[in-house]
Amino acid sequence: MTEPFAAVEIITAKRNGQRLTDEQIAWTVDAYTRGVIADEQMAALAMAIFLNGMDRGEIARWTRAMIDSGETMDFSSLSKPTSDKHSTGGVGDKITLPLAPLVASYGVAVPQLSGRGLGHTGGTLDKLEAIAGWRADLSNEEIFALLEDPGAVICAAGAGLAPADKKLYALRDITGTVEAIPLIASSIMSKKIAEGTGALVLDVKVGSGAFMKDLDQARELARTMVDLGTDAGTRTTALLTDMSAPLGRKIGNALEVEESVEVLAGGGPADIVELTVALAREMLSAAGVEADPAENLANGKAMDVWRKMIAAQDGDPDAELPRSTHTETITATESGVVSGLDALSVGVASWRLGAGRARKEDPVQAGAGITIHAHIGDKVAAGDPLVTLHTDDEGRFERARDILDGAYTFADSAERGSVILDKIQ
Amino acid sequence: MTEPFAAVEIITAKRNGQRLTDEQIAWTVDAYTRGVIADEQMAALAMAIFLNGMDRGEIARWTRAMIDSGETMDFSSLSKPTSDKHSTGGVGDKITLPLAPLVASYGVAVPQLSGRGLGHTGGTLDKLEAIAGWRADLSNEEIFALLEDPGAVICAAGAGLAPADKKLYALRDITGTVEAIPLIASSIMSKKIAEGTGALVLDVKVGSGAFMKDLDQARELARTMVDLGTDAGTRTTALLTDMSAPLGRKIGNALEVEESVEVLAGGGPADIVELTVALAREMLSAAGVEADPAENLANGKAMDVWRKMIAAQDGDPDAELPRSTHTETITATESGVVSGLDALSVGVASWRLGAGRARKEDPVQAGAGITIHAHIGDKVAAGDPLVTLHTDDEGRFERARDILDGAYTFADSAERGSVILDKIQ
Repeated sequence: MTEPFAAVEIITAKRNGQRLTDEQIAWTVDAYTRGVIADEQMAALAMAIFLNGMDRGEIARWTRAMIDSGETMDFSSLSKPTSDKHSTGGVGDKITLPLAPLVASYGVAVPQLSGRGLGHTGGTLDKLEAIAGWRADLSNEEIFALLEDPGAVICAAGAGLAPADKKLYALRDITGTVEAIPLIASSIMSKKIAEGTGALVLDVKVGSGAFMKDLDQARELARTMVDLGTDAGTRTTALLTDMSAPLGRKIGNALEVEESVEVLAGGGPADIVELTVALAREMLSAAGVEADPAENLANGKAMDVWRKMIAAQDGDPDAELPRSTHTETITATESGVVSGLDALSVGVASWRLGAGRARKEDPVQAGAGITIHAHIGDKVAAGDPLVTLHTDDEGRFERARDILDGAYTFADSAERGSVILDKIQ
Repeated sequence: MTEPFAAVEIITAKRNGQRLTDEQIAWTVDAYTRGVIADEQMAALAMAIFLNGMDRGEIARWTRAMIDSGETMDFSSLSKPTSDKHSTGGVGDKITLPLAPLVASYGVAVPQLSGRGLGHTGGTLDKLEAIAGWRADLSNEEIFALLEDPGAVICAAGAGLAPADKKLYALRDITGTVEAIPLIASSIMSKKIAEGTGALVLDVKVGSGAFMKDLDQARELARTMVDLGTDAGTRTTALLTDMSAPLGRKIGNALEVEESVEVLAGGGPADIVELTVALAREMLSAAGVEADPAENLANGKAMDVWRKMIAAQDGDPDAELPRSTHTETITATESGVVSGLDALSVGVASWRLGAGRARKEDPVQAGAGITIHAHIGDKVAAGDPLVTLHTDDEGRFERARDILDGAYTFADSAERGSVILDKIQ
């Protein structure tokens, strides 16, 4: 086959700050998937995109080309609307777990095709795999059946969705080109659009524990993704939410399942409840359903869906969750009110305790992680417990303690405000 | 072995516009040579360097690291000083051929370790290989012997000099990162400093037929290279010279040898003579010898060295030069004085006629190329010959004619000025 372009001319054009044409972008993504564009050429192009950017039209075309690299799903044959949520990733972000059954309890199907965690933010599948028997891999037939009843499915995204994105993401990870907004936006949205959800709510995290460290960057990313979704015919909105401190009080796989079940039982930390209800309201509204999602948390209907959802994937919702073999508690050396708890430090410490993986092939410890006794706004006296560390490998405590050193700040008074910072639609 | 850095942190630092430390640069070049830094990582770094630059200290350290990746030569045991020239490459640039014996005729040794041509500018070794029997590959012992007598040697650079540069150059070629000034400068200077010449004169070309299309860029490249040489203890100066039109009237391998012999015989085109004499004066002066180099062109002493130099490498200086099997002449369709002849068009046409190669492993035709009948300042009438095309493959004429279409511009009057635009020291 004769190629219509040469990789070098496309790299050179973007390097020189030129706009790539639709034809150039379609060819680039396809040729990279076919191996005609070599990894080193795509790496140079990714860096040129990082530094010189892409405009809305280029990003839309790039996203479409990544969707076209693989198969797509179509939920239009379902008896109900679909609505999905994607978070850009944060520390203690277990919101998907209570959120999916909550939304499903109002008759809106939630097709949550997820990935595993890499780095300091956990993966939804890793969390659910802490439940005895639960399995992440489902056939398309199983996914469709579960979306009808109980109405929510959280499972592994098939390898057939946006394979160009998988290849490119692995390359970006080793070439310092992860944080480029056009590449993040097209990576996320190509998978979500290929997945075929009718509506989508994005939870774009801002702060030390997130990819986006400042609000302006996060707003630009959210705006880019909302535009991409809208242009592709998916009703898309985004909430910008705070990730300067961990969400909730439990970080780690089994620990986050435990806290999610507390929320489904009508309790749980205020920030988790606030964000779960706010995202549910957006997802329902985007699917044409107006409701107060707090109701089905209070009355147990969301819990009913959760139990059916877990059981349908061979998990035992009544099984005792795994615990780590060792714990160690860090206590306060001064008195005061907690005014800050650095999300990145807590995320990295939990990761190093065994809750996360450094490489794709690493296992995770189901019980490892951190429980937070003193969160923002809590008053402590010297000697009071701040956090408890959990791990199966006590050699990891020292490293985790080092990472947490300085993570707390204290003041005379402080309180945690709303985690919701802005909405983009 | 534990690596002191990770490639991603170095790529990210340069991507973010930070200065790389001496230790980071030394490790980067070494780790790339060892294969610890992958090609895709170096490609991303090269693009970040292209777009964010390196300062004088970084370029110096990068150059030193490339020198340290291989062996170096040391000519201090010779009975005479050494002086070398490097051209950034241009169309019809055969200056090395008369220049090396001319400088040697004044008792200054010229160790001209050269490469082969790639793309539209010819390679010095390809030109000399048009001479029956001449061989480019010499042992170090042969090089030292020839530098004593006849005093000049033009041969292939050994693979042991700056191997990091060879690996990096091949990568830059396919990733759109060739034209970055820090990378061009360090590539050229690492080889020349490793080669061990005492003095160095750079011929930095400017114009359509050169890498550097405008004078400011060329001046920055020259300044960067002169600083690198000076910092490394090599007496270095640079001439900025015009490459908007071809040098001389003969382009191609055997054709350029023929024109070089005309210059050594005291004749030849004025631009070639001007540049040869100017560069010789710089090379001699940098080696501490003040002389008027025009004398040894006129009195035959440079020709004597040339004949010994060719014979010493098994070439026959009296052998008839190869001729291509087919020629075709393009004539003027209008009358006037030639005011412009585009160097790039002539270079690419000659290349496509068979004088150059598209890939490293391609052969070149010794006789292929272009002879220029009407150069800048020449008056022509409609029907007068402009250029003659030479090739062994008559199927190539049409492509070459297409490339040359529009290469000539005409005016009522025009003359070619000095090819020397500026000097940097």
